[in-house]
Amino acid sequence: MGQRAKAAARILARTSTETKNALLHSIADGLKTHQDAILAANAQDLAAARAAGLRANLIDRMTLSPARLQGMAADTRNVAALPDPVGEEFDGRILPNGLRLHKRRTPLGVIGLIYEARPNVTVDIAALSLKTGNGAIMRGSSEIRRSNMAIMQVLHEALAAHNLPQDAVQYIEDTDRALVKHLLTLDAYVDMIIPRGGAGLHELCRQNSTIPVITGGIGINHIFVDASANLAQAIPIIHNAKTQRPSVCNALDTLLVHEAVADALLPQVVENLSKDGVTFRAEPKAAAIIGQHEAVSPAGPQDFDTEWLSLVLGLKVVSGLDEALEHIARHATHHSDSILTDTWAHAQRFLDEVDSAAVYVNASTRFTDGAQFGLGAEVAISTQKLHARGPMGLQELTTYKWIILGEGHVRS
Amino acid sequence: MGQRAKAAARILARTSTETKNALLHSIADGLKTHQDAILAANAQDLAAARAAGLRANLIDRMTLSPARLQGMAADTRNVAALPDPVGEEFDGRILPNGLRLHKRRTPLGVIGLIYEARPNVTVDIAALSLKTGNGAIMRGSSEIRRSNMAIMQVLHEALAAHNLPQDAVQYIEDTDRALVKHLLTLDAYVDMIIPRGGAGLHELCRQNSTIPVITGGIGINHIFVDASANLAQAIPIIHNAKTQRPSVCNALDTLLVHEAVADALLPQVVENLSKDGVTFRAEPKAAAIIGQHEAVSPAGPQDFDTEWLSLVLGLKVVSGLDEALEHIARHATHHSDSILTDTWAHAQRFLDEVDSAAVYVNASTRFTDGAQFGLGAEVAISTQKLHARGPMGLQELTTYKWIILGEGHVRS
Repeated sequence: MGQRAKAAARILARTSTETKNALLHSIADGLKTHQDAILAANAQDLAAARAAGLRANLIDRMTLSPARLQGMAADTRNVAALPDPVGEEFDGRILPNGLRLHKRRTPLGVIGLIYEARPNVTVDIAALSLKTGNGAIMRGSSEIRRSNMAIMQVLHEALAAHNLPQDAVQYIEDTDRALVKHLLTLDAYVDMIIPRGGAGLHELCRQNSTIPVITGGIGINHIFVDASANLAQAIPIIHNAKTQRPSVCNALDTLLVHEAVADALLPQVVENLSKDGVTFRAEPKAAAIIGQHEAVSPAGPQDFDTEWLSLVLGLKVVSGLDEALEHIARHATHHSDSILTDTWAHAQRFLDEVDSAAVYVNASTRFTDGAQFGLGAEVAISTQKLHARGPMGLQELTTYKWIILGEGHVRS
Repeated sequence: MGQRAKAAARILARTSTETKNALLHSIADGLKTHQDAILAANAQDLAAARAAGLRANLIDRMTLSPARLQGMAADTRNVAALPDPVGEEFDGRILPNGLRLHKRRTPLGVIGLIYEARPNVTVDIAALSLKTGNGAIMRGSSEIRRSNMAIMQVLHEALAAHNLPQDAVQYIEDTDRALVKHLLTLDAYVDMIIPRGGAGLHELCRQNSTIPVITGGIGINHIFVDASANLAQAIPIIHNAKTQRPSVCNALDTLLVHEAVADALLPQVVENLSKDGVTFRAEPKAAAIIGQHEAVSPAGPQDFDTEWLSLVLGLKVVSGLDEALEHIARHATHHSDSILTDTWAHAQRFLDEVDSAAVYVNASTRFTDGAQFGLGAEVAISTQKLHARGPMGLQELTTYKWIILGEGHVRS
């Protein structure tokens, strides 16, 4: 599979933007024309998942419908409309010896995708990979195999319609778990591994992969409310960061409050957010300020190291910026952290010293997202530091080569 | 060690360019004032190495002298003179909702360096890491331990003189090999592994590291002489690429010659390069054209997959550009490959289709080097595709964070 993907990727790499965009439109069309087959396969997956007793939220993620397929098709057409980063030339210069030098953006080669039971990811990553001239080898979780194979049929027909090799997008159909580890060692053929799933999947990839892995998507995120914060702004920001979509990685996990405003703010936060179902884990100082409240329980030893992904919020009172920075350095996953302040120097120190992919002043952490940041698409959110950090768009699926043009140049 | 390096790196990250440059000048001064101690330690290492029967070329690499120390000091001052990439802000924009967004270049954190018996690498990587605000944990080979510890003394005194933590640069003194594997799994504290050594070391790192590894430095490099090449230019280019410094990764390994010019070129190449000690491994067609020659032997099955690092050159006749591209795709390590041609379309196809870090037209492969490319310094030469490809300078020791400035912004 690796060899065939690499051979197909060489062809994709020299395919024009025009053809790649036409291919994406064919895929979008195919999701419509093959709708019945996809939904039938999905119904089989869902029946098996229900029989196996899968949780309702997982079953919801797996579920396709005509509307969801239409959304996936629209997303694919949106990727077609984005500028193609491949071929961009930059950092050009003429060296003192007359050599002409520049970098040219090129596809990475082959992307390995390992993901959980979300069939929309299949289409999404295929579209992003093909747009950037990359091949892809995919391995979704076994619960969604039938749906994914029906989608692969659409992808392969679209590739064939444009005289492109079907091997450009391949799916590991065999559900043997050992194959995941095998994929992670195909460094001769696969250039990047993207895990899309929980912390366990990221750790599995990091431990076993000989291919560079984009780890990320795990956010233990903080908002620090400074003494000078505009408290009228603070409540809606905290409410938004915690409740607007609690199950995602850029949602708020821990609220740090300056002791000077804790009395004024914390009861309001509890009052305001508990109405929308939020419960709280408060360390002793915060608990003492709030007093008895049915939504508040004492923070346990692991609570500030937990990504909640649900309507739970950690509360802690700190003596000031220094303690807030220390807490964030110790507990953050370096995803998204925000300071609410009107003090210029504090905002600057927070921006300087918080070592996270996205560092905010006076805004909700929920903006850490490829579409929100104006990248047009999102491959993943990286919390590691090499290659790309934070939301990754199309450009992050490319590398570059150096091009050197001489006229008989030799090194002296 | 990892924890202490990470804590020190947090301090380095907020150290001014002025202080970092002063630190580098102190290191350069220290190499002079501690010259006797360093040379005495080096003499002990050399005596032990000779007693152990190490090869002369390895002993030469290990050997320090007043002149070599002076060179290392001068290199360190050169790094001080380079622009500091940290703090650069780029990709700034105001989003439609009024959020202000930009990226800021920041240090990576902690660099892990694993290298062979070259004490100059200790100073070199320390200088590049400190200039970019990174901590470093180093592990050189045991043969050169005493020299490296004497150099560490210089580094630590310079750090102390500028009130910077000595933990910013640490050396794994224990020669237990298991510690290398342990270093490779410190992903909570180390952000990038740079192996400086042969293919075996790179493979060891790739197989065992849970930290991103910059693999590279292995070049099986090609020159393809096309039918339209200027043959008068070709001989000096081939001579330069093979003989100017045969032991390095950007030297030429295989010469591919278009059959239309093989009769004219190959005997000249053998005549010209054999005078400087080059021997040849020729596949049958090339051998038949050259005829009997004492410097030429038949190419064995592994010869086109060998990085020679010595005065050996593989010779092959190809039917044209297609066969040359196929050969390069199959045998190259994606380091440096060059076409010699006067045919515009062939040059373009070569640039498009050869998937190497550096792709040349009408020039020697020997230019693939940070200094030659105008980067001012070189950390490593990457042949992998993530983060950086080809020569890596100071900028490649940095990452970025996204900075988002709001005025009470919430996501709708």
